[in-house]
Amino acid sequence: MHTVTKVSAMQRLARDWRTKHLRVGLVPTMGYLHDGHLSLVKRARKTVSAGGIVVVSIYVNPTQFGPGEDLSRYPRDLARDQKLCREAGVDVVFAPDDAQMYPGRESGQYSTYVVEEHLSKVMEGTSRPDHFRGVTTVVAKLFNIVQPELAVFGAKDFQQAAIVQRMVRDLNSPVKIIIAPTVREPDGLALSSRNKYLEGELRTQAVALWKAIQKAQATVRGSSQPLKATSLKNQLRELIEHQAAARVDYIEFFDPATLQPLASVQRGSHLALAVFIGKTRLIDNAGM
Amino acid sequence: MHTVTKVSAMQRLARDWRTKHLRVGLVPTMGYLHDGHLSLVKRARKTVSAGGIVVVSIYVNPTQFGPGEDLSRYPRDLARDQKLCREAGVDVVFAPDDAQMYPGRESGQYSTYVVEEHLSKVMEGTSRPDHFRGVTTVVAKLFNIVQPELAVFGAKDFQQAAIVQRMVRDLNSPVKIIIAPTVREPDGLALSSRNKYLEGELRTQAVALWKAIQKAQATVRGSSQPLKATSLKNQLRELIEHQAAARVDYIEFFDPATLQPLASVQRGSHLALAVFIGKTRLIDNAGM
Repeated sequence: MHTVTKVSAMQRLARDWRTKHLRVGLVPTMGYLHDGHLSLVKRARKTVSAGGIVVVSIYVNPTQFGPGEDLSRYPRDLARDQKLCREAGVDVVFAPDDAQMYPGRESGQYSTYVVEEHLSKVMEGTSRPDHFRGVTTVVAKLFNIVQPELAVFGAKDFQQAAIVQRMVRDLNSPVKIIIAPTVREPDGLALSSRNKYLEGELRTQAVALWKAIQKAQATVRGSSQPLKATSLKNQLRELIEHQAAARVDYIEFFDPATLQPLASVQRGSHLALAVFIGKTRLIDNAGM
Repeated sequence: MHTVTKVSAMQRLARDWRTKHLRVGLVPTMGYLHDGHLSLVKRARKTVSAGGIVVVSIYVNPTQFGPGEDLSRYPRDLARDQKLCREAGVDVVFAPDDAQMYPGRESGQYSTYVVEEHLSKVMEGTSRPDHFRGVTTVVAKLFNIVQPELAVFGAKDFQQAAIVQRMVRDLNSPVKIIIAPTVREPDGLALSSRNKYLEGELRTQAVALWKAIQKAQATVRGSSQPLKATSLKNQLRELIEHQAAARVDYIEFFDPATLQPLASVQRGSHLALAVFIGKTRLIDNAGM
């Protein structure tokens, strides 16, 4: 396995692979890898098979963080990530810095963004206004740099996955998007690099998101008729905020195809939620 | 030569060409081809050479027209364009319709745009606010669909060319951009599909743009010191509006590298202007 830090070197490699007709799978990450990421790597490897190439990009993308968010303290450990990637059979780690990805952004010399204007307006897009603009931009760049046949994203970021799929369809990117299931801790907490922030009692209380999901599933599946979203959301909010350190950012039921909010909830409806546990903002989602 | 109208068929062809390691050059146009377009085709052919592939896209892109602009009456004649392309040795004409390029745009099902936020704010961007958003979006799509090694744009649309180059650099598109010189009528009028709108006396008066460019060049080149942009612009405006049907939209002197307006003009400064001749809006530009 080797690590590439320059865009031009990565593009040269990509061109070589194309010339040799090798299948290439990309797993875009912000690093500080956990078993969730590694499950995406496995999925990429399985799809391109042993003779193909698996690239993991590791880049804490500044354009998807808002002012006051955790960009500067987002956990980073490239040496550890490289070791995990090597053990997982990754072929190339692409780990550029900001000067490579956004040359001259401070001085107005970087000025092109990819913007999804519809699915980005709800949920995470309401709480984090420019977040998805940063995501679609960096993903479009990574696709142009690595030129993969396929890219694997995690279902934990459900809205992100839907927006990337929309972008690929709208811009005709020649990349197949694969969505792999969320990996959870034994107590149900979805794996996330931000779980590192959760110390002691906060880690215990973080299970509130999963408890709310399970409660919603049980309620919806146990009901013979559609349920009012507002009252269900209120119940879940109460359940979550019963934990002293938990504060709900949003709880939303929506159509998984359109991401548009639902007034009435039934099997097939999707639930997403964002909750602050102390200062740490966690997200999770599941189908009902 | 054959004509492809479906995105999926065009992407299949592009994949085949890549597999065979053929060089591919793209000339994006809105059709109603003239000798300016054909000079771009020649440039593409020369660059990919006889064994390569030249694709001309013909698509009147609705997202680059503002409300009240000439989208519906923009001249179209695909049969004539196909004949000209065949004679010019083009391999493939890609001529999709709106349903292929922007599926579901009316109903919010199309929602991803590529936006350049800096160079797009001046000149054409001031007069036509969403114009360049449409241009960068359709060009990004065409690059993903045709996957060319290079694309040829005309210098007549100087700001557009600068913005496309910026987009390619920012988004790391693996496409080389070539800018080919403006082709002119014997009296100096820059070739444009919109010249079709100019009947009788209007056609005569349209030479005012070229006269203004020549006047500016003579003045700047004849001066031993930098000139005040405002007074030069006033002189040119007067010269142009001396023609009864001519109304200046903008006249701007700018740095050709940054597109930012200049207060003082000298050799190397660039001039761009937009002028209504009757109801027809014409643009032109040149270096001093």
